[in-house]
Amino acid sequence: MGRTIFSGRWCHGGGERMNTDLFEIIRTTRSMRRLKPDPVPPALIRQVLEAGTAAPSGGNMQAWRFLVVRDPAIKTAVAQWYRRGWHEVVAPRYRSGAPAPGSSRERFDRMLAAAEHLAEHLHEAPVWIVPCLEGGTHTRTSGASIYPAVQNMLLAARALGLGATLTTLYLLFEKEAEAALGLPEGTHSYAILPMGYPLGKFGPVARTAVEDVAFSDRWGERWTEG
Amino acid sequence: MGRTIFSGRWCHGGGERMNTDLFEIIRTTRSMRRLKPDPVPPALIRQVLEAGTAAPSGGNMQAWRFLVVRDPAIKTAVAQWYRRGWHEVVAPRYRSGAPAPGSSRERFDRMLAAAEHLAEHLHEAPVWIVPCLEGGTHTRTSGASIYPAVQNMLLAARALGLGATLTTLYLLFEKEAEAALGLPEGTHSYAILPMGYPLGKFGPVARTAVEDVAFSDRWGERWTEG
Repeated sequence: MGRTIFSGRWCHGGGERMNTDLFEIIRTTRSMRRLKPDPVPPALIRQVLEAGTAAPSGGNMQAWRFLVVRDPAIKTAVAQWYRRGWHEVVAPRYRSGAPAPGSSRERFDRMLAAAEHLAEHLHEAPVWIVPCLEGGTHTRTSGASIYPAVQNMLLAARALGLGATLTTLYLLFEKEAEAALGLPEGTHSYAILPMGYPLGKFGPVARTAVEDVAFSDRWGERWTEG
Repeated sequence: MGRTIFSGRWCHGGGERMNTDLFEIIRTTRSMRRLKPDPVPPALIRQVLEAGTAAPSGGNMQAWRFLVVRDPAIKTAVAQWYRRGWHEVVAPRYRSGAPAPGSSRERFDRMLAAAEHLAEHLHEAPVWIVPCLEGGTHTRTSGASIYPAVQNMLLAARALGLGATLTTLYLLFEKEAEAALGLPEGTHSYAILPMGYPLGKFGPVARTAVEDVAFSDRWGERWTEG
């Protein structure tokens, strides 16, 4: 069922042979933007959601709600706003800009091609999880009570052999997209996580070195282990 | 060295006996607010930071910077704003409100006592990681490019036997606290993660059931596995 076998440490438990080592999962949870349309068993969706709800939130208040979307009509209606955001705003910006730090032009172009694929096929992902927050003021730190849950879900999905992506770009058309999602007044979505069995393979993420992004005590003072 | 042994699946690798099963780690990554002052080996800080940098960010742009604070003078200066935020705003609000969903009054009061302890001892945590974003507009979705990294770091810390907490409440005094952290113009912090060997034990988190927070296709329509 799309379970990927890869090198690293092995855990023995539950009669299954499956690498669920945290560090290996973290190291290989890439955004998977090309997905098969095959349905995802509800038992796996549950495991992903449970991982989400284990995350921290301000005062443990868990104002999160997770909309699990499988209805093709809803996905199709929302996906058109995603596609517009991609074609009109995001794609032109990335194509004219520099590649991501730690990435090559070629690798970055491959990412853009995958993102373009996602824009065309988002509605075909068998299941979306849409993490929302009820009420509150929605400041720049309100994400502290929802994106940790998102990351838990991405890691859990990957450990279960499911590909997923964290995307927010449909929010360029927030009003229209959230109306198509049927969100009530005062509730806002923070991402769409399209999820399904991946067409490609999991693999290590490409990032800049820790030394290039960590400072020691004072801004600009490079952190080093030594 | 503060490593916690607990039930569950065991991984065999690197000559160590240590449970790093993703689902077990997710299930037991509680906010650890009572920490020993013992220093944290830089090799562990590196593993935590590496886990952070493996997270996704918008367009993989990694505009994150991680300020690793060990200097007691800086911690003391920032902690006073945290303490004021706790005593003047947050503690009165939580004490007069209902306990967190899925928690009892007693358990919630224990959490508040731990948070009060943190307010008094924040500067004594041996190391803080302060995740920041450079530039950008800092909207409610900018957290999508930093809190996934935060969650990776919390999980990695826990897997290494380190306790940590995600807290944002010092940002009630954002200007003063970020000046004390020495952040440059246009850069903002999104949390403080005080980190160290925990005084207490790791254990399962207390949360509401998935069925109470997940909807199927339409808002208010309960998601069930069946």
